Amino acid sequence: MQKQFIILHNILKLTGMKNFIHLFIVFCLVSTAKAQTQQEAWDSTYRPASYTLKVAQFESYEHSPGDVVFLGNSITAGTDWYELLQMPQARNRGISGDITFGVLQRLDEVIKGKPSKLFILIGINDISRNIPDSVIIANYAKIVRRVKAGSPKTKIFTESILPTNRSFDKFKNHYNKEAHIAAVNQGIQKIASSEGATYIDLHPTFADSAGNLDARLTYDGLHLNAEGYKRWAALLKSKGYLK
Amino acid sequence: MQKQFIILHNILKLTGMKNFIHLFIVFCLVSTAKAQTQQEAWDSTYRPASYTLKVAQFESYEHSPGDVVFLGNSITAGTDWYELLQMPQARNRGISGDITFGVLQRLDEVIKGKPSKLFILIGINDISRNIPDSVIIANYAKIVRRVKAGSPKTKIFTESILPTNRSFDKFKNHYNKEAHIAAVNQGIQKIASSEGATYIDLHPTFADSAGNLDARLTYDGLHLNAEGYKRWAALLKSKGYLK
Repeated sequence: MQKQFIILHNILKLTGMKNFIHLFIVFCLVSTAKAQTQQEAWDSTYRPASYTLKVAQFESYEHSPGDVVFLGNSITAGTDWYELLQMPQARNRGISGDITFGVLQRLDEVIKGKPSKLFILIGINDISRNIPDSVIIANYAKIVRRVKAGSPKTKIFTESILPTNRSFDKFKNHYNKEAHIAAVNQGIQKIASSEGATYIDLHPTFADSAGNLDARLTYDGLHLNAEGYKRWAALLKSKGYLK
Repeated sequence: MQKQFIILHNILKLTGMKNFIHLFIVFCLVSTAKAQTQQEAWDSTYRPASYTLKVAQFESYEHSPGDVVFLGNSITAGTDWYELLQMPQARNRGISGDITFGVLQRLDEVIKGKPSKLFILIGINDISRNIPDSVIIANYAKIVRRVKAGSPKTKIFTESILPTNRSFDKFKNHYNKEAHIAAVNQGIQKIASSEGATYIDLHPTFADSAGNLDARLTYDGLHLNAEGYKRWAALLKSKGYLK
């Protein structure tokens, strides 16, 4: 959408402000159509039966007061949070491959539970699918605002998208997206700031000196190993976010 | 191994008992070599990085007195047992694709935790790989005996291998193995009986009138959906196995 803004800006310079309203309407329609197409593409191509199963399971579990929800994709799904943190109120709401559109679709289950805390880590799969940064950020803002509206007492933590490591060979669509990761993280940080959420920058904990996902903490350049999860847990504990 | 027994039996009839000792030694050597080859085949072809990750994670978690461990493959891995049962001491030790050889390799982690209860459901992936029933049953017996020896106070529950449903299309190697499922289940039941474990027959809960996995409880003819897990939980509760 940044590119679209630049194009719009240049057209405005050329045509003057008189056509601004028309151009703005066209721009909004194009953006909405693009987001809808991506949503549809995700619906039709992505969600395997196991995704639907997971959502149905989440809906089948009972909510408890004081739930601490971890919401995201495979990186969140890949640990037993209650075992990792020794915290029975932890709830894993990670689904492998998920993107911001998916989280928006299944967000009501999270909101209904009115958790005491919500940790969000989502976006790397959006980036791997070349969903524009602006769309990811807009979706992210919707997620945070919907939680705030539906469960105002929930303390929201937005976590920065982790770096990847291209020296592994498995997730080619996820590697070499540093600029997008940085841009989306900047957006997430701004959302946290304007919506009263807490931004957790995971970068210093997980990046090596070159800014890549530390090879000692991953087995495929995208997902975390046991040591990676331990570091994550240590960070959340040391910052007092779990109290 | 059943076939080998029949061949052995016929040879004995022809040769008389005088060569019995020699034949028995050859038979034992062949069986051991076969099991070793299968173990090696599994080691080299099966275990993806994510398997190793899971084992490392299990080893990184703290054990607690009174742990209730669910040990198995993707069918066990596919639910949050602590949420499903509302039981904080539940521990998920399921790994997708696992077989009896894998369970044997990672069993020490379970034994070390000295859980109060252990629920085992393993074998369908062994069957899908055409590992002989006798090898699966022998491995199963080793699993139960090693747990008994290493953690004598653990109450062991051996669960029958679930039926599959071939009307789905995804797991062709798992379908149409009814005879093997029945044979291995018979073996598991005998092990439970001789080793003082509790055999849980899941068949009446999950099979339709034709003996297949009830299509309402699965999304692919092998794995369970939310309704399937609910039934499983209800069965364990109603029988008082979780108390």
